[in-house]
Amino acid sequence: MSLDVLTPVSELTAALGDAVVTEPDLMLAYRRDQSLLTAAGMPLALVRARDTDDVVAALKIAHRHGVPVVTRGAGTGLAGAANALDGCIVLSMEKMNAVLDIDPAARTATVQPGVINGDLAAAAAEHGLWYVPDPGSRAISSIGGNLATNAGGTCCAKYGVTGDHVTRIKAVLADGRIIHTGAATRKNVAGLNLTQLLVGSEGTLAVIVEATMRLRVAPTAAATVVASFPETAQAIEAVLAIRQVAEPCLAELMDRTTIAAVNDMTHMGLDESAGALLLIQCDGRDSTAEARICAQACADAGATEVYDTDDPVEGEAFMQARRVALTALERRGSTLLDDLSVPVHRLPEMLQAIEGIAARYDLTIGTFGHAADGNLHPTIVFDASDSEQSARALQSFDEMVVECLSLGGSISGEHGIGVLKEPYMEAMVGATERELMARVKEAFDPTGILNPGRGL
Amino acid sequence: MSLDVLTPVSELTAALGDAVVTEPDLMLAYRRDQSLLTAAGMPLALVRARDTDDVVAALKIAHRHGVPVVTRGAGTGLAGAANALDGCIVLSMEKMNAVLDIDPAARTATVQPGVINGDLAAAAAEHGLWYVPDPGSRAISSIGGNLATNAGGTCCAKYGVTGDHVTRIKAVLADGRIIHTGAATRKNVAGLNLTQLLVGSEGTLAVIVEATMRLRVAPTAAATVVASFPETAQAIEAVLAIRQVAEPCLAELMDRTTIAAVNDMTHMGLDESAGALLLIQCDGRDSTAEARICAQACADAGATEVYDTDDPVEGEAFMQARRVALTALERRGSTLLDDLSVPVHRLPEMLQAIEGIAARYDLTIGTFGHAADGNLHPTIVFDASDSEQSARALQSFDEMVVECLSLGGSISGEHGIGVLKEPYMEAMVGATERELMARVKEAFDPTGILNPGRGL
Ligand SMILES: Cc1cc2nc3c(=O)[nH]c(=O)nc-3n(C[C@H](O)[C@H](O)[C@H](O)COP(=O)(O)OP(=O)(O)OC[C@H]3O[C@@H](n4cnc5c(N)ncnc54)[C@H](O)[C@@H]3O)c2cc1C
Ligand SMILES: Cc1cc2nc3c(=O)[nH]c(=O)nc-3n(C[C@H](O)[C@H](O)[C@H](O)COP(=O)(O)OP(=O)(O)OC[C@H]3O[C@@H](n4cnc5c(N)ncnc54)[C@H](O)[C@@H]3O)c2cc1C
Repeated sequence: MSLDVLTPVSELTAALGDAVVTEPDLMLAYRRDQSLLTAAGMPLALVRARDTDDVVAALKIAHRHGVPVVTRGAGTGLAGAANALDGCIVLSMEKMNAVLDIDPAARTATVQPGVINGDLAAAAAEHGLWYVPDPGSRAISSIGGNLATNAGGTCCAKYGVTGDHVTRIKAVLADGRIIHTGAATRKNVAGLNLTQLLVGSEGTLAVIVEATMRLRVAPTAAATVVASFPETAQAIEAVLAIRQVAEPCLAELMDRTTIAAVNDMTHMGLDESAGALLLIQCDGRDSTAEARICAQACADAGATEVYDTDDPVEGEAFMQARRVALTALERRGSTLLDDLSVPVHRLPEMLQAIEGIAARYDLTIGTFGHAADGNLHPTIVFDASDSEQSARALQSFDEMVVECLSLGGSISGEHGIGVLKEPYMEAMVGATERELMARVKEAFDPTGILNPGRGL
Repeated sequence: MSLDVLTPVSELTAALGDAVVTEPDLMLAYRRDQSLLTAAGMPLALVRARDTDDVVAALKIAHRHGVPVVTRGAGTGLAGAANALDGCIVLSMEKMNAVLDIDPAARTATVQPGVINGDLAAAAAEHGLWYVPDPGSRAISSIGGNLATNAGGTCCAKYGVTGDHVTRIKAVLADGRIIHTGAATRKNVAGLNLTQLLVGSEGTLAVIVEATMRLRVAPTAAATVVASFPETAQAIEAVLAIRQVAEPCLAELMDRTTIAAVNDMTHMGLDESAGALLLIQCDGRDSTAEARICAQACADAGATEVYDTDDPVEGEAFMQARRVALTALERRGSTLLDDLSVPVHRLPEMLQAIEGIAARYDLTIGTFGHAADGNLHPTIVFDASDSEQSARALQSFDEMVVECLSLGGSISGEHGIGVLKEPYMEAMVGATERELMARVKEAFDPTGILNPGRGL
């Protein structure tokens, strides 16, 4: 049999055996991520890579045949970036989920990309170490996906996002060649920063097959402040005042709609008369004193109730209320979740705009998010079976993005571009810049097989 | 006169008037940076850009004629990255030195690239804000150069390097087109990270004409610890113990040779019986208590003298001793300064290797550096008029780099590659990776006019 009569699938099967799945029913579960209203195609084949060799083999075949490859972590993305394209290979990393090494002296963890964030955190904790980035999806999303989307979490303002915690990446290029980026050191300026190029690249440049992540010593103590305010603007005033005098590790916001949804689900008894709730945590040896300072700033900014506690169990209960925000809103209807980022001092304007848009389109929009770093998740709740309401939902989504841009914001703080935000990329980055990004992609992937049309 | 008989110089002069200098005598001062033993050519012309338009005009002309362009900040680099190439245009940014805007609400400063680091810090301080990155050259180096080399400073381990403090960059591509990278927000995952690509790119991708830098609130207090140890290994033991229990903003090391040189110059009376001196600072409200913890860790690790103080003036005097280290060593002969970075826990091995190399080559090597982040500056002191000794100096330099690589280190922690470290790039990053960097450069600069042959 001559090489050119081999199909991509027969080649994949010959090379990778039962790592290759082509049954449509089995592939269905790998067709899309957790975003709603994003297009997804039907793959030609699913490859569940067991190791780097599998990734290399799959990419070489795809490259030779010009078949698009969509790399998939845990599929928890919210922008459709891991959605299949028609006729693509979905390259799943879920089986490459080993923590390869935890080095307490170097304070690093080297992991395969399919490792679940929470599993890495647990493995680090066994050594008294802390893997910091904690997206809401930490129990279900993979480190490879976290890197490829540059996932955030609650602690970003103080400790940075996923990309701030990676030192080295091993990746496979579209043509199957392996690269290593970065260095084991804290500081490294040798050549161009390929590591930070891969971070946030949403599977468009290379497939991450290994990463070395930085760990920290876990802080000895944490203290929590919960404050409710009549108006969201007052909550932001408190956040702005606090950052002049303290450095909390997180400051999370929930608006009136979100508070009510969380109460409905959890019966936690959060203050429903409030327009906004602020949840603040301080960590480290000075945390109790720092939390008091934050509590005072909340009171000064007009909080009607302020509560602070050193009790980690109590603190965690409040954090849980924040973590279920999306799930609680999802119980009220279909949701369209946005991910807008503005400079922190412009949050009041953004929040006001969102309220105005909700009123104008007669829609429920619950807003929660990371106030400390200006990243909001306004969540449109609507009835997807009502086409007129769905249309209004999409229009209001659009208007929020436009408003965010006019405030000097970013169309995505942490969820990425995928297919959901692709229409806004040019307005966000500019035409020349976008062309440049395409050329950088070409430098990595000259034939354009890696997640084409996504992320940039 | 038809276009094709115009020379680059006549075009430059027509377009830019007296911003163009071609007198060889005047150009001499712009031929090289502060590195020793690095090659430098003779430029065709020097352009002292007054604004972005000048940069655009100069690049368009250079691009049309295929003339190489070496962008120059303040020329304080230590790797020869700003050295002229024969027949190049040196594009100096020194006149574009305005602080355009300090925004206290956003806590950012927008500056032209020629602004001197210390001037930015002073402008920020007027608003009670702090520009963190503090290279030893802060009084003389430019923000554009700091960005293009990703300059470090003493506070990197706690607060990060220059690249960790930039939010947006405006730059001019080789063909004269203007790009804006990044966003005004704390978090932004829209597309590829062009900002961090420009950071550390040593003038090979684009010319930075404006940058927005993050500012912090200045810490309320700082406390200083000075400890002397019989052996360097004990000092590192202290650093490793400290990072389990505290987060000092800096931990600087000086070895025996450096201590003696500093004493000779300053008559400060540092403990010359010591094999190593460690200078530690803690900042923030908890600084006094944190400094005590650090002091105790030093004592536990075998320090013979430990002194701690809350007095900022005293603290600054000790910092001054560290800052003059290079100058003090330069008084002893010609110096060849290295910039090696290893994982912090491998510093004892690196230091031991340096001592071995000094002994084997019968050379004086004074080592100082940023112990908190593993970045050392072993400085070979030699007699440049003695060719045999100069050869030994070069060989020992080479051997230190090789040793650093074998410890999983980086050939440059903060000074960059330039021409000095170019011979080690392939060993550092690998052949495929280097080719990839070249292709990324090509995406920015297809005709290869920007600082060709440097930095990657
Ligand atoms: C309940 C919930 C809460 C969430 N909370 C947060 C949050 O707080 N912060 C946040 O940032 N996000 C959050 N997300 C979004 C999502 O979890 C993150 O984007 C996450 O990083 C995606 O990881 P994943 O493994 O699921 O990646 P996937 O969804 O599988 O893929 C995401 C992108 O990464 C690429 N990719 C995956 N693995 C690799 C690899 N090995 N090499 C190259 N490319 C790869 C894919 O091609 C795709 O472009 C949340 C999602 C849910 C469902
Ligand atoms: C006494 C002394 C102490 C030092 N201490 C430190 C230290 O602690 N930490 C440290 O990191 N470095 C240190 N250095 C090295 C040097 O100061 C830094 O590398 C500094 O960042 C260089 O800035 P510059 O403006 O002098 O740049 P230059 O030397 O002029 O140029 C350096 C590189 O940046 C490029 N470049 C400059 N401006 C631009 C621009 N606008 N756009 C694009 N590219 C540009 C140049 O092409 C070149 O490749 C020290 C140097 C001295 C002399």
